[in-house]
Amino acid sequence: MRILGIDPGYATIGFGLVEAQRAQVCMVTYGAITTPAGLPLSKRLYQIGTDMEELIFQLKPDEIAVEELFFNTNITTGIAVAHGRGVLLYAAEKCGVPLHEYTPSQVKLAVTGYGKAEKRQMMEMTKRLLKLKAVPRPDDAADALALAICHARSFTSRLPQASGVRETV
Amino acid sequence: MRILGIDPGYATIGFGLVEAQRAQVCMVTYGAITTPAGLPLSKRLYQIGTDMEELIFQLKPDEIAVEELFFNTNITTGIAVAHGRGVLLYAAEKCGVPLHEYTPSQVKLAVTGYGKAEKRQMMEMTKRLLKLKAVPRPDDAADALALAICHARSFTSRLPQASGVRETV
Repeated sequence: MRILGIDPGYATIGFGLVEAQRAQVCMVTYGAITTPAGLPLSKRLYQIGTDMEELIFQLKPDEIAVEELFFNTNITTGIAVAHGRGVLLYAAEKCGVPLHEYTPSQVKLAVTGYGKAEKRQMMEMTKRLLKLKAVPRPDDAADALALAICHARSFTSRLPQASGVRETV
Repeated sequence: MRILGIDPGYATIGFGLVEAQRAQVCMVTYGAITTPAGLPLSKRLYQIGTDMEELIFQLKPDEIAVEELFFNTNITTGIAVAHGRGVLLYAAEKCGVPLHEYTPSQVKLAVTGYGKAEKRQMMEMTKRLLKLKAVPRPDDAADALALAICHARSFTSRLPQASGVRETV
């Protein structure tokens, strides 16, 4: 199953595609959609929508995992991120790809085994799990890959046991 | 000039179309796009995007006026509204209609002459200015018409003085 992780935003939107086969998760590609800072928000949103549709068309994911939004300190940035996330969800629906949402804690738990893991631990574990030589850049792409891993683990843990699997009694 | 006012949201999106000729503003139509409460946010956003594009295609506005977003108390609702507003801005850009944003205070000032006017005053003045028999319903549609009036007044006040206008010395 091809899972596309999306780290939402309006200036930089990270994406990461993995191929998941039961417990095995391999990186296919990753990167970021970026929009110019000088452009009005509506034009950035339009670019996000069209780039996202093009990305889904090219990468052909079976499922999409996107981070849920939490406001911490900067409410102005939060509003703009929510605008961008709205367009990302719209594009996913338009392309007919099933969508799953995860909180930052769920992603941390799935990737490091600890729901309050630090960013550095997350990056390192994402690198190890995908057998990469270096931590993916930008950070938004690494976050997107972590989301994809989280969904792969959540998905495979719900699969029925294959017949003939040896029971660990 | 045909001006489409949009009151952003994710459950109910008010719209109001006016025809503005210098100081004269006439109501053409108004209403609301609504999305079912039981539907996941991503599906509601997709519906908002497609309905908005269809609306712009049918009403053929020359310009769009949309309210700026401010958070007051309910941050969860605010996040969802920002998602919806993102899709509305995306749709306006996609249709190539110039977009203008106004704060609630700017709309109040333009319609009632007082930036801190109450909702009831706003409704009443919108009804009077458009020579309607009753206050438009739902409220979201009345808010959208007020936005369109605000843009019409802002626009006409920027027009160059017609030649032959008597100077008030």
